[in-house]
Amino acid sequence: MQGAEPKDFSLEGAKEPAIHSGEVLLQNLYLSIDPYLYLGLRLGRKANGAVEPGSPMRGRVVAQVLESKDPKWRPGDIVLTVADWAERARAPAHSLTRIEATEDIPLSAWLGPVGQSGLTAWVGLVEVAKAKQGDTVVVTAAAGAVGSVAGQLARIRGCRVIGIAGGSEKVRHVIEELRFHQCLDYKAPDFSQQLAASVPHGVDVLFENVGGAIFDKVLPLLNRKARIALCGMVSQYRDPAVTLDNFHRLLGTGVRLEAFSVYDYLPRRQRIISRLVELIRAQQLHWRCSETQGLSSAPDALAAVMNGGNFGKQVVRVR
Amino acid sequence: MQGAEPKDFSLEGAKEPAIHSGEVLLQNLYLSIDPYLYLGLRLGRKANGAVEPGSPMRGRVVAQVLESKDPKWRPGDIVLTVADWAERARAPAHSLTRIEATEDIPLSAWLGPVGQSGLTAWVGLVEVAKAKQGDTVVVTAAAGAVGSVAGQLARIRGCRVIGIAGGSEKVRHVIEELRFHQCLDYKAPDFSQQLAASVPHGVDVLFENVGGAIFDKVLPLLNRKARIALCGMVSQYRDPAVTLDNFHRLLGTGVRLEAFSVYDYLPRRQRIISRLVELIRAQQLHWRCSETQGLSSAPDALAAVMNGGNFGKQVVRVR
Repeated sequence: MQGAEPKDFSLEGAKEPAIHSGEVLLQNLYLSIDPYLYLGLRLGRKANGAVEPGSPMRGRVVAQVLESKDPKWRPGDIVLTVADWAERARAPAHSLTRIEATEDIPLSAWLGPVGQSGLTAWVGLVEVAKAKQGDTVVVTAAAGAVGSVAGQLARIRGCRVIGIAGGSEKVRHVIEELRFHQCLDYKAPDFSQQLAASVPHGVDVLFENVGGAIFDKVLPLLNRKARIALCGMVSQYRDPAVTLDNFHRLLGTGVRLEAFSVYDYLPRRQRIISRLVELIRAQQLHWRCSETQGLSSAPDALAAVMNGGNFGKQVVRVR
Repeated sequence: MQGAEPKDFSLEGAKEPAIHSGEVLLQNLYLSIDPYLYLGLRLGRKANGAVEPGSPMRGRVVAQVLESKDPKWRPGDIVLTVADWAERARAPAHSLTRIEATEDIPLSAWLGPVGQSGLTAWVGLVEVAKAKQGDTVVVTAAAGAVGSVAGQLARIRGCRVIGIAGGSEKVRHVIEELRFHQCLDYKAPDFSQQLAASVPHGVDVLFENVGGAIFDKVLPLLNRKARIALCGMVSQYRDPAVTLDNFHRLLGTGVRLEAFSVYDYLPRRQRIISRLVELIRAQQLHWRCSETQGLSSAPDALAAVMNGGNFGKQVVRVR
């Protein structure tokens, strides 16, 4: 496996990229920092953001068009795309999605609750797990970019929502700002007992971002025909091997797990994003952004999301 | 966890049970011996055949009615039901299913390929995994009661079927008699390489009976949107903890796993059993039975299915 820690990155000078017909030159404004990038680097899976050692790191960005060799785009346009982690990057015109900053939805939100993180939360909770009124829903990494949206969507749908997060500050944030019904600190010595006590009627939906020992502890609490939306297993990205004591307890329960991909639900993307925008405007969906400054901070920002250092969406403000 | 080894059983004398209105007195003919019984005993889950320590063991049986206090049943009728592991047992009349022995389908088959084992295979392969023509299907415990039927059904549906079994005799049986396209011996030192080489186009369906290290080795070979019919994890019933190196590789693949229960598919039972009977009559579906003699052999028969000692369906012939 490859390296993905801050020491494995370097910041290097580069010539401004030349663009060809059908391309644009971008000034990156925000980089999206997500655990899947770390996983991609570790596993070398291109679909998860892996790059060849020695090549520029890439990921989702919000950027401004500086120069366009495509009739659809003009200098000044603000776009979402995937690009190199650089001040300036080129991108094919067909890869761009137009966005705009508004008072209530700033640019960084297009990488978070109304971007890929929000889409992932919706797809997992609604399309995959089919959470419905009255369900008991457990969301791990509840203060993270995806979990925070998933749990709030569950609350809005009339579910009983229990978050799991690390540390008392996050727990308070999840209960007071995100308004989950309950949030448990997995670092508490009696976490297992708290978890069991918090779901007297069992668990109907598990929105799983963490994996490992926390995943294992939820398994025995799942009801018949429960649904697991397997989104991430961030606790396993450094050391992927996992020992599960309770996996066999699923046998014969009718429980379904889907290691879903948002790319399988793209036809619904626009409708889902519009709904998320509405929910934010109606102040039903709250979100936070953890921001670091400057390209050189990106490796540390990636380490932060791996170490639970972020609240909500982690981005790097390039300038 | 409770004991489930031969030393944990004892054979005891008992009075002939008295029956009440709406009940029948049965002479047991065959006991169905299945890994789930062992799991039930270990976990104490009643749905999996657990009984209180000191109480009679129970399970699926083929039996003959000796005495009936229900108008629907008469002495001499042959039935399927769940009953105590005893020479004679009582059962509620509503729990009985009528069967009959024919030249091509003997009584023990009603516990196997045209009974719960065959139903489980069909539900997992067809209803849950939706195996279709051209799919590559991997079946673990391929020589077992369920796996042997699941793999043949996949072959009949036009899938490419790779079995996994333990030892050269079983491998030969699976290829020559059950006519899977390939069968691999998981005890071979180069099993992992053989497995990867046997699925050049990846795996679309995994019919999982074994769990543990074998399950873990199939995970990286699954195609996008592959389906896992999780039926059993027999390798984990003695020591349920499992270490998986590859579980995180499912992330973002769209792979679905269902820990299915045949009880969720009961409305289709009669149609499925009729089809299995047809397939046996047409000699498209082959089956074997491993039989031990006498009630006292039941604990050893259960240990045999746990240790891979059986070919096909394991039953105890009570008399």
